[in-house]
Amino acid sequence: MRIQIVNPTTTVAFQEKNLAAAQRVASAGTEILSVSVKSGPPSIESHFDEAVSTIGILEAVREGEAAGVDGHVIACFGDPGYLAAREIARGPVIGIAEAAFHVASIISTRFSVVTTLARTKIICEHLLQIHGFEHQCRKVRASGLEVLELEETGMAACRDIVEECRRAVIEDEVGAIVLGCAGMADLADHIQNEIGVPVVEGVTAATKMIEAIAGLGLGTSKIGDLAYPLPKKLSGSVRHLEIGDSGPASVIRKN
Amino acid sequence: MRIQIVNPTTTVAFQEKNLAAAQRVASAGTEILSVSVKSGPPSIESHFDEAVSTIGILEAVREGEAAGVDGHVIACFGDPGYLAAREIARGPVIGIAEAAFHVASIISTRFSVVTTLARTKIICEHLLQIHGFEHQCRKVRASGLEVLELEETGMAACRDIVEECRRAVIEDEVGAIVLGCAGMADLADHIQNEIGVPVVEGVTAATKMIEAIAGLGLGTSKIGDLAYPLPKKLSGSVRHLEIGDSGPASVIRKN
Amino acid sequence: MRIQIVNPTTTVAFQEKNLAAAQRVASAGTEILSVSVKSGPPSIESHFDEAVSTIGILEAVREGEAAGVDGHVIACFGDPGYLAAREIARGPVIGIAEAAFHVASIISTRFSVVTTLARTKIICEHLLQIHGFEHQCRKVRASGLEVLELEETGMAACRDIVEECRRAVIEDEVGAIVLGCAGMADLADHIQNEIGVPVVEGVTAATKMIEAIAGLGLGTSKIGDLAYPLPKKLSGSVRHLEIGDSGPASVIRKN
Amino acid sequence: MRIQIVNPTTTVAFQEKNLAAAQRVASAGTEILSVSVKSGPPSIESHFDEAVSTIGILEAVREGEAAGVDGHVIACFGDPGYLAAREIARGPVIGIAEAAFHVASIISTRFSVVTTLARTKIICEHLLQIHGFEHQCRKVRASGLEVLELEETGMAACRDIVEECRRAVIEDEVGAIVLGCAGMADLADHIQNEIGVPVVEGVTAATKMIEAIAGLGLGTSKIGDLAYPLPKKLSGSVRHLEIGDSGPASVIRKN
Amino acid sequence: MRIQIVNPTTTVAFQEKNLAAAQRVASAGTEILSVSVKSGPPSIESHFDEAVSTIGILEAVREGEAAGVDGHVIACFGDPGYLAAREIARGPVIGIAEAAFHVASIISTRFSVVTTLARTKIICEHLLQIHGFEHQCRKVRASGLEVLELEETGMAACRDIVEECRRAVIEDEVGAIVLGCAGMADLADHIQNEIGVPVVEGVTAATKMIEAIAGLGLGTSKIGDLAYPLPKKLSGSVRHLEIGDSGPASVIRKN
Amino acid sequence: MRIQIVNPTTTVAFQEKNLAAAQRVASAGTEILSVSVKSGPPSIESHFDEAVSTIGILEAVREGEAAGVDGHVIACFGDPGYLAAREIARGPVIGIAEAAFHVASIISTRFSVVTTLARTKIICEHLLQIHGFEHQCRKVRASGLEVLELEETGMAACRDIVEECRRAVIEDEVGAIVLGCAGMADLADHIQNEIGVPVVEGVTAATKMIEAIAGLGLGTSKIGDLAYPLPKKLSGSVRHLEIGDSGPASVIRKN
Repeated sequence: MRIQIVNPTTTVAFQEKNLAAAQRVASAGTEILSVSVKSGPPSIESHFDEAVSTIGILEAVREGEAAGVDGHVIACFGDPGYLAAREIARGPVIGIAEAAFHVASIISTRFSVVTTLARTKIICEHLLQIHGFEHQCRKVRASGLEVLELEETGMAACRDIVEECRRAVIEDEVGAIVLGCAGMADLADHIQNEIGVPVVEGVTAATKMIEAIAGLGLGTSKIGDLAYPLPKKLSGSVRHLEIGDSGPASVIRKN
Repeated sequence: MRIQIVNPTTTVAFQEKNLAAAQRVASAGTEILSVSVKSGPPSIESHFDEAVSTIGILEAVREGEAAGVDGHVIACFGDPGYLAAREIARGPVIGIAEAAFHVASIISTRFSVVTTLARTKIICEHLLQIHGFEHQCRKVRASGLEVLELEETGMAACRDIVEECRRAVIEDEVGAIVLGCAGMADLADHIQNEIGVPVVEGVTAATKMIEAIAGLGLGTSKIGDLAYPLPKKLSGSVRHLEIGDSGPASVIRKN
Repeated sequence: MRIQIVNPTTTVAFQEKNLAAAQRVASAGTEILSVSVKSGPPSIESHFDEAVSTIGILEAVREGEAAGVDGHVIACFGDPGYLAAREIARGPVIGIAEAAFHVASIISTRFSVVTTLARTKIICEHLLQIHGFEHQCRKVRASGLEVLELEETGMAACRDIVEECRRAVIEDEVGAIVLGCAGMADLADHIQNEIGVPVVEGVTAATKMIEAIAGLGLGTSKIGDLAYPLPKKLSGSVRHLEIGDSGPASVIRKN
Repeated sequence: MRIQIVNPTTTVAFQEKNLAAAQRVASAGTEILSVSVKSGPPSIESHFDEAVSTIGILEAVREGEAAGVDGHVIACFGDPGYLAAREIARGPVIGIAEAAFHVASIISTRFSVVTTLARTKIICEHLLQIHGFEHQCRKVRASGLEVLELEETGMAACRDIVEECRRAVIEDEVGAIVLGCAGMADLADHIQNEIGVPVVEGVTAATKMIEAIAGLGLGTSKIGDLAYPLPKKLSGSVRHLEIGDSGPASVIRKN
Repeated sequence: MRIQIVNPTTTVAFQEKNLAAAQRVASAGTEILSVSVKSGPPSIESHFDEAVSTIGILEAVREGEAAGVDGHVIACFGDPGYLAAREIARGPVIGIAEAAFHVASIISTRFSVVTTLARTKIICEHLLQIHGFEHQCRKVRASGLEVLELEETGMAACRDIVEECRRAVIEDEVGAIVLGCAGMADLADHIQNEIGVPVVEGVTAATKMIEAIAGLGLGTSKIGDLAYPLPKKLSGSVRHLEIGDSGPASVIRKN
Repeated sequence: MRIQIVNPTTTVAFQEKNLAAAQRVASAGTEILSVSVKSGPPSIESHFDEAVSTIGILEAVREGEAAGVDGHVIACFGDPGYLAAREIARGPVIGIAEAAFHVASIISTRFSVVTTLARTKIICEHLLQIHGFEHQCRKVRASGLEVLELEETGMAACRDIVEECRRAVIEDEVGAIVLGCAGMADLADHIQNEIGVPVVEGVTAATKMIEAIAGLGLGTSKIGDLAYPLPKKLSGSVRHLEIGDSGPASVIRKN
């Protein structure tokens, strides 16, 4: 099985972290492809950043599909473009936020999310609402760190996150913590050791979820809402994403 | 006051309809700018179409901001990119679905939506959930028409829509109908006459909502979740959307 | 267009504030009629106060309808009797709470309400639930002021409200504040200047919403739930509200 | 124990039905006072009817309090004015809709409501939402009968109701039926025999709930939201409802 | 009428408390049978404890049914096995949590629960969600006491509970407190006197609710979801709970 | 990795089906232990059946823990006892309903469940509510088959299920079907071929979810709600489930 981890930013360090994290948990026989978007920002901290990174994600998913990968992980905690990506994919596609929510809700009754800047909390809250995890998630907390600070400051950043996680465990009375940024993928074990409750990290969670679903022989339903998009002429800066009448489009049905 | 109506498709006929619809309801002193995206598809019927049209919308909103417009309407019933657009706008931004939901919920206790292809219903359902109109909307109904058929077949298409609206009134027991596609902007009066219940059309509703909010002296909150995005280097096909350290970015605050 | 602002209390100072507030935002060509109820209390701070003021509101709406106004604003933050008022009105009717919720939810992702006495919070919470704004409103906060203190103490009262608004912005992390009392209509600009985030005030918001909806040619749906009430003999102290078989009742249908 | 059943209409036949129904289920030692409002309509089928009947209900509750009754039932399925009535009562107050929802949710997992005119369904739906019974109630169904037809046509009306109940059992797969009108109080046993599933009728359910709560030594909480209203001068047609500084008002606290 | 109060623990002191509490509120003519489970733990503070106590509850309900009791109370605040118990009972069955929620929601708009160990809060939260009281209950609070400490420490334990109740009234702004453990049945009056707001205690509330429902001539619906279980051969340690083809099973229907 | 699949019934045919299903999807290196409960019914079709089977499940989970398995699957679509089982397990525990909901919600936007008898639908609906999948699941449908008929009638039963699935796809407009009974584990491929949309079967889904979570190095959180139960003396028919002060209990903490 081949799983493509899409880093929706142009920061190569994240791509490397993703690869390391995914390989650490991958089953024997699973090959991890870790890529970064060609179109997008160096980090994602707003709806605008998400919108522009989505183009890069769709480019990458399309390339991954052409290369025959069995599933895709969108390695940003806002799960940008996950529904659009599902439409153009045969196999399963999952964002790291959604994946972490699923896992955390199975190993605990209530969890909290610890993320980066406060302004990203609304993105997480909308995902919790759409995916149905509002009861399970007691609180979305911001550490106040910018995404790229995670790279630059290393363990200093980690201390702030550990402190926020500790507060979450005590104040929110949760049994698990979800780390709210792909940039924290290398910190999960350390944080878990520090705080003593299970820490769910999205890149690894998503990798295992894709393995599970693809391993069931299941992929994105191509009937109904997530069917391949109707082939259309695209213009301007998104022209290169045009889907012709051949390829995936050949199997679409109108519905 | 100047309001920009963004047609998120490249089909000029919609731009013309939007202009006519908005001008029909605009107050004296309101100038309507009707534009079509340069980047995007000819019609929007999937999450993929929405994702690519969002780039064109962000381009258009940025141009509108530079030109000093007082507010923006996103004239596609899926409200693509509305949160990203809000981040880069000073004035109010509203999608036609959200606008229609607000209006319909004030003139009736329950409404139904009549849209185009069945696969677009999920987009509407997610919006109803996020915006809080799940109780007010009894049902999202598809007429089965493709968006561009609205252009090509004219009144024949309209008959199918009228029939679906009639069924909605009787079966869903609603007091108002929301038309679920910008392409229906010219059909609203005819349909209302045929079915005898108020018909809310999004382009006109959104135009009046922008007039109302801008007329209150209010715009998108630049504090918190919808603050201007942090300036970042963008790469690849979205490179041209990069926001520099001057301009809006000069007033951002980190939060 | 003529819009009637109904002050559901007998305190004339509120009627004057409403007039000033509404006129400040009204479009050219909109005439504001500001009236106070003849039947009702001097201020509204309980369900009981709401129930008795509703009689005065229905009297006023009926008079406004006879005078041919195009829409009605109920200028109390509990929106007393808004559904009954809609039944006897041709045009749109909106309460100032509902109007403020609509506006605040468009310019921000999350808002908080700052109101008067703690006991009125439940009224606001019920409205948020019925109208679907529970996710958008993070918290309803009481300043602890009685409604009439707003009149008597002027700027002293305002200081307490400003402080509560500041706390809301910081603790609730909201991008907008909704003022929870018609008596605060003259304080909105001052508060917004003090706290630096958009402040939504209900009388002005409602005025613009009525302008918007009536400007669309839409009024309260007379089909279904909000149709004119069936004509009935009324007794006792509400006898004078009896609706005869002529007038509005002549267009009712049984459903 | 003395329980007052308030018929919020001026139709004496309902008062008599209420008396008979309540007496049938009352415990030994419970005295039933059945009264009709002096101010109000002959039947309640709209929000307007509810609003005007509320005045009569408040008059009656105040009289009942003066007479020392231990609790009040509001015998209209829309539960008009129940929160205002609670504010001026020492003992428990319950509407027949709320009472029936409580009982039905204990004897079944899912129930349906069968009511009169379609336009009253929205009132029931709002109550289900506010009281938290949306999951337990699968459907609110209208028989299409006007309230007063229940009086006039007797068993013919009953046949239509029985048929609607049967459809509810089969189509909605519910284990209990709630009758959605006080005017059906005398039909419950007959309908239950016909359809073979438990039928919950509100007047009787409310009587027993008041007995239960008053029997626990509990009454409406006078701390917080439902405290006695602040004493205020009332004007116009509601002047007679003014609450002086003595009496209940003497125990109020500002909060 | 005979009501069986099932203490789902093997601690006889609770059985005695239940008897005293229920008899204190029972109507003349109601006979209280207070029993303890034969199979189960000495106290219930986890899902595991609930699961094993359910066997004892089902044994007791079956014995009660054989003895012809008119209804059953499950006297543990987690309402263990209440749906299974309803299936094998003819009359009404209610847990003390559900009963207390119903009562508290009628005498106040918002209440808080004060329970024992923090780990039991999730059980209460799930019940609030399933029964629809999430809006009415502002907070579930733990006193930190183990259930059996209530027995051993008496008034010392009570002081901690009183303090937590006081905090609930002030911080949660509620009009009523629900005591979250059957072991607090004897403390309710004392606590209510101390804190000055209505205190709802489950054993007494449940007793009166059963009286009310059985007094209406209603019992658990035997049509649909709560019909008698299909007769089946049981094995192992639950073998003795087998329901034969005679008895209740004789009236089942397959659905 | 060793995963224990617990058949909560005494019907050995299900145990064999579970083994075959789980082995079909298990990764290389995963060993499947398929067991049946010793205490319980031959099939589960009611809350009563669930309650008694829970004892057998707890016995089996305890044995599995002693044998050092890495996770547990509860192979009944009602997920009986899953929270109690989690409390006594170190690794992850998942029911087949919950597992199927997670998988179906990732590969489609909306799914429907097709189960056995109508009376089991309420169990599924409660799970959907607690787990947060109410929006994703459009409808729970009963095929009308008893669980054991699945064994006896084989392909005839399957035809009825296929027909119900087809109706679900067309009427509910869903992109995936969840099979609502462990007894359908061997039918999934056939049904998927017949109806042409992805079919999610719980035993296989749960097996892969356990592989995923255990593969992440995560197990049930032992902090908070799902910590090991406090050691207690058990009586009667559940005496053998007593957890001593040694073993798991030695690591508990009071919270």
